[in-house]
Amino acid sequence: MNISMKINGYLVLFVLAIAFMPSAVLADPLPSWNDGQAKNAILSFVANITNTNSPNYVEPSGRIATFDNDGTLWCEYPDYVQSLFMLDRIRDMAPAHSEWNDTEPFSSIISGKRSATESFSTKEAMQIYIATSVNLTADEYMGLARDWLSSSNNSEMGLPHAKCVYKPMLELLSYLRENGFKTYIVTGGDEDFVRSFSSEVYAIPPEQVIGSAFKLQYVENNSSCYLVKLPEILVVDDGQEKPKEIEQNIGLRPILAYGNSDGDISMLKFATSGDRYSLGLLSRHDDPVREFAYNNTTAVGKLDKGLALAGQWGWQVVSMKDDWREIF
Amino acid sequence: MNISMKINGYLVLFVLAIAFMPSAVLADPLPSWNDGQAKNAILSFVANITNTNSPNYVEPSGRIATFDNDGTLWCEYPDYVQSLFMLDRIRDMAPAHSEWNDTEPFSSIISGKRSATESFSTKEAMQIYIATSVNLTADEYMGLARDWLSSSNNSEMGLPHAKCVYKPMLELLSYLRENGFKTYIVTGGDEDFVRSFSSEVYAIPPEQVIGSAFKLQYVENNSSCYLVKLPEILVVDDGQEKPKEIEQNIGLRPILAYGNSDGDISMLKFATSGDRYSLGLLSRHDDPVREFAYNNTTAVGKLDKGLALAGQWGWQVVSMKDDWREIF
Repeated sequence: MNISMKINGYLVLFVLAIAFMPSAVLADPLPSWNDGQAKNAILSFVANITNTNSPNYVEPSGRIATFDNDGTLWCEYPDYVQSLFMLDRIRDMAPAHSEWNDTEPFSSIISGKRSATESFSTKEAMQIYIATSVNLTADEYMGLARDWLSSSNNSEMGLPHAKCVYKPMLELLSYLRENGFKTYIVTGGDEDFVRSFSSEVYAIPPEQVIGSAFKLQYVENNSSCYLVKLPEILVVDDGQEKPKEIEQNIGLRPILAYGNSDGDISMLKFATSGDRYSLGLLSRHDDPVREFAYNNTTAVGKLDKGLALAGQWGWQVVSMKDDWREIF
Repeated sequence: MNISMKINGYLVLFVLAIAFMPSAVLADPLPSWNDGQAKNAILSFVANITNTNSPNYVEPSGRIATFDNDGTLWCEYPDYVQSLFMLDRIRDMAPAHSEWNDTEPFSSIISGKRSATESFSTKEAMQIYIATSVNLTADEYMGLARDWLSSSNNSEMGLPHAKCVYKPMLELLSYLRENGFKTYIVTGGDEDFVRSFSSEVYAIPPEQVIGSAFKLQYVENNSSCYLVKLPEILVVDDGQEKPKEIEQNIGLRPILAYGNSDGDISMLKFATSGDRYSLGLLSRHDDPVREFAYNNTTAVGKLDKGLALAGQWGWQVVSMKDDWREIF
């Protein structure tokens, strides 16, 4: 064996060593998470389901993780981003809808009397959702959403909404994908609204975004054909609709589910049901300095039932104040 | 430079050469396809959309291909496989349903008077579909489907249904995936029926199977929760429902769509709409010796409208007789 062969041999060994070294040894995959119960639960869960010698090993095809969006991946306070978008759309559309001047809920949006999600009834919220979506194609709707997102800020943070995304959650999404997971968003928000930024902001492609949606109409116009949103809501993807939509769209039970409000309870129950080895997580908005502290106190992001169930169901409650070293 | 370094240098060059050699040079990716217009259209389409120097280059994220199942990927003659499954289910369930003995369409299934899809009206077919699905979870339904598939043959071919899969289509699915495509099934058949074998038979995971489906009920039972099929059909995924389901589930327009009947026309139009560079394909069942010759002559697999539109829309019509060197 000459010196060159020896050097090559060492090189091969070194490359092999790197290739088979668990990624955690190379670097902390979740640097924005403080050491503690939540971070340990995540690391040990992923270590287990990727370890072929573990009784809890899961084939890559079964590594499905589902995430709520508003309040889980990005800020939902002082209001849902999509609500702000819809209210601005109503104001933009108003000149072409003189009938709105004396029709609620539109008239009080135009006059500025009401401007927050919680000031509208569910029925009114649906009227607003329909009025701002109807007759649009998904491409047109996403174009409007992208334009609006590029010019609107979170009023409290003073930052574009796409910058009000939680760094620890981006790390978690990447870490899961590096470990063979398919990461999905399962949102009460509009599917196309979230699809308009999910690839760019979360590296989650449109086919892995499941959300609220309209019935569609098929339209053919010479050699062009497309689909437009009808004024009829197909699904409001919240609460018990989340597991249903997961079953219809994915056909597999997630092994990890992450939310932040009572609307996510059914999704977490579905993922962590029975004896299967799984991980459910809930973020608490309890950091008034770096983000907001509003948990189980406001309609947006209410989590009282979820916190009450966490112990019994074995869910990890993630304190944004204590568990996250950095938030943005 | 000593001899060992030289050998290593050559080795590196050789490995690099293999790595960067277009796969077509190494081996024909579609060996079961005869040279001809259809095969050329596929090869040139894939070469173009994967060539970063081509004006028709498509990023991997946009490489979506959608396939019909019955008659496109596997045999649908002498009858739809799922119909045979449902009729056997009715006969299996009959002892617990004495009321079926004098209720159509069940009584004539039990008596053997009717045993083919075309002998039932659409309404009756839906009654059969509901009766054989209701109250089951997806897992239970898929278990029944798998058991049945493992013990049932195509009566004309004398082979299990999962062996009546077209080899040229398996090659095409693999070839597209090797070139960065996500391959989807968009079927009029039940989503769970097709999911019960799609991973094993087509290497297509459940989340890439879109099909007909039921409304679901969320059920919680102590610490276990699951979804059961309600006696209400959510979608029959055929005709214009196909593009709608594609938009809801994928959120991207396919650049390649492949079908074999008039129920696939809207999906092909959606994929090949307007001026976008895309490929639509339709298989013709015109080989009475190696498979069947029934195109545009029977209710199952009727394709008269599709053939009439193919020229105008630029779709490739694939003759199973002439374009396929091997079928199974």
